[in-house]
Amino acid sequence: MPDTLPADSVGLVQAETLHFDQPLALDCGQQLNQYEIVYETYGTLNEDRSNAILIEHALSGDHHAAGYHSMEDRKPGWWDNFIGPGKPIDTNYFFVVSSNNLGGCKGSTGPTAINPETGKAYGPDFPIITVRDWVNSQKLLADMLGIDVWCAVIGGSLGGMQVMQWAIDYPDRLKHAIIIAAAPKLSAQNIAFNEVARQAIMSDPDFHEGRFYEHDTIPRRGLMLARMLGHITYLSDDAMREKFGRELREGKLNYGFNVEFQVESYLRYQGKSFVDRFDANTYLLMTKALDYFDPAGEHNHDLAATLKHCTCRFLIVSFTGDWRFSPGRSREIVNALLKSHKQVSYSEVVATLGHDAFLVPTPAYHDVMKHYLLRVAGKL
Amino acid sequence: MPDTLPADSVGLVQAETLHFDQPLALDCGQQLNQYEIVYETYGTLNEDRSNAILIEHALSGDHHAAGYHSMEDRKPGWWDNFIGPGKPIDTNYFFVVSSNNLGGCKGSTGPTAINPETGKAYGPDFPIITVRDWVNSQKLLADMLGIDVWCAVIGGSLGGMQVMQWAIDYPDRLKHAIIIAAAPKLSAQNIAFNEVARQAIMSDPDFHEGRFYEHDTIPRRGLMLARMLGHITYLSDDAMREKFGRELREGKLNYGFNVEFQVESYLRYQGKSFVDRFDANTYLLMTKALDYFDPAGEHNHDLAATLKHCTCRFLIVSFTGDWRFSPGRSREIVNALLKSHKQVSYSEVVATLGHDAFLVPTPAYHDVMKHYLLRVAGKL
Repeated sequence: MPDTLPADSVGLVQAETLHFDQPLALDCGQQLNQYEIVYETYGTLNEDRSNAILIEHALSGDHHAAGYHSMEDRKPGWWDNFIGPGKPIDTNYFFVVSSNNLGGCKGSTGPTAINPETGKAYGPDFPIITVRDWVNSQKLLADMLGIDVWCAVIGGSLGGMQVMQWAIDYPDRLKHAIIIAAAPKLSAQNIAFNEVARQAIMSDPDFHEGRFYEHDTIPRRGLMLARMLGHITYLSDDAMREKFGRELREGKLNYGFNVEFQVESYLRYQGKSFVDRFDANTYLLMTKALDYFDPAGEHNHDLAATLKHCTCRFLIVSFTGDWRFSPGRSREIVNALLKSHKQVSYSEVVATLGHDAFLVPTPAYHDVMKHYLLRVAGKL
Repeated sequence: MPDTLPADSVGLVQAETLHFDQPLALDCGQQLNQYEIVYETYGTLNEDRSNAILIEHALSGDHHAAGYHSMEDRKPGWWDNFIGPGKPIDTNYFFVVSSNNLGGCKGSTGPTAINPETGKAYGPDFPIITVRDWVNSQKLLADMLGIDVWCAVIGGSLGGMQVMQWAIDYPDRLKHAIIIAAAPKLSAQNIAFNEVARQAIMSDPDFHEGRFYEHDTIPRRGLMLARMLGHITYLSDDAMREKFGRELREGKLNYGFNVEFQVESYLRYQGKSFVDRFDANTYLLMTKALDYFDPAGEHNHDLAATLKHCTCRFLIVSFTGDWRFSPGRSREIVNALLKSHKQVSYSEVVATLGHDAFLVPTPAYHDVMKHYLLRVAGKL
């Protein structure tokens, strides 16, 4: 609870909501007749509207990427380390837009929103959303905001996949694509982890086939398990060793099934606190968007051909300790870009943390982002 | 359903049961006043009782390691590829003993057995069992069978940990220790996976704090999730890619939450079929035995010092694609043995399958085992 906000913070911010009345056709064949997108902005749009950056969030992220909602906030937005005056995504130069994805649970239309056709929450009737659907909706958001060309679109993990889709589907609408800790598609193992998470949620008796709002309950156990499992994949084995080792919470074995090792305590805490801030139907949708992402699938599985019409420059970043989307997965993107003669920079950052490294300003990563974006801003 | 059994099979086998009336003191401080151990044997004990090999099973294994229980059996024992006439553990030379661990659910006393003090199944009252407890009980089994010295004790994964404990606790009772795909202790990540599996089982409303037998139910959802998760850790990412890739079961996306990718179908099948053959309380106990295993913990975390009094020879085997207990974990054991001047052979087998590779007779692995054991038998 800071008395004053840090000098390099974007300060107090407030979400905006845009209402869309034109139907949005979705990959699944359904359409959303009307929907809302909630977003935040940081910095100032310049006169020729050429300094706008779009931030893409990952699975459990949202539009609140930087700054504080009130002086009482304990924590700033999820990427506050990267967005602000003097930070890599420097609000002295850039106008930053960060939106909540459709299907989300933080303000944009999703399963918890009221379906105008029934007067009840969508719940499981909310259509399956794809990365392409998100990018289409964000393109309409850009139109509404009067941003013809993003000077950069930036995202990590599932956010990086959205960046890639932007570069493929709207090549004239962005100048730079920064794709961090991502992959051109999920591996079978990635899908397998998502499937266990989904089964955990869907097999919870409190799930009620997704209509748990009507039963005034939450599939608490399932969502907790899904989140615990997620956290294992966000950290490397090394990072877990450094963070927890085999430390016992009470200094001795208790020969029972209560928490014994610190890592158990950490996971249970992460799982429990997630349940109160995230919607289970949204979690299911996000995992499906991950599973389905495979832009090369429509191009005979030729990623270079898929990227052929891209015109932006690329920065690809990966982290050595990431086993969810390992550097090898980023190199698949880099190699495909090189093969189709695109301008690409690649940085493989030594970071033991794991997948979560994309959220953390380790010096090498921070500097790569800062210098790339200073060039984008014409300041280098 | 073979009309005749394969020529290199140990043939039809039958489990034996030994009853123990002497109390067994356990690491947890409790004791088992009486208990039974079920086991099978293959081959013939020689006159000087010097050709006996003990097989140690892993988490979900049991005593039925080789041969068939009836002509109608669809499958032989779990390590039939390795045990039989002419096979690496050659029953022409060796007398093989394979027992079900205490706490198990396949005949040895465990949670599903009747607690003589209450007349009801032990359920959650069955004490936490450690690897050392197992080895102590197996030592008593050896006494009963009149086997003073095992010519080898062999096991993979959790089985390999039991082998290590034998070598440490009863150095005079074995000549060779073969430790396959194991680790000197679990990493924080290993414990984390076990914890998610346990939470899946224990949070299932049908678990009833372990007293589900009395409620005539099974924590089916939780046990299924635990097994699905287990299978992800048994296979490498590469093996999953080779086995399933991103193959769709129906050739197209269905934009829903039914099975879409082959890997989902595989995991659900594995999960469902496990529920009917394994006890949830036993599963919990086995994961705890894994978490607790840390023989160096009592020796200032000095593994070399822990192994100092071992007198047997060692063969350590690991598999390149194993990320559950990677080759690096086996090398920790090898290095500690070298440091304490023990005789150790080490084989790092190139095998993409993952942890499950220890069950499969890839040629290099098969040959390493065969030649090592031919030397043990004095045939090389």
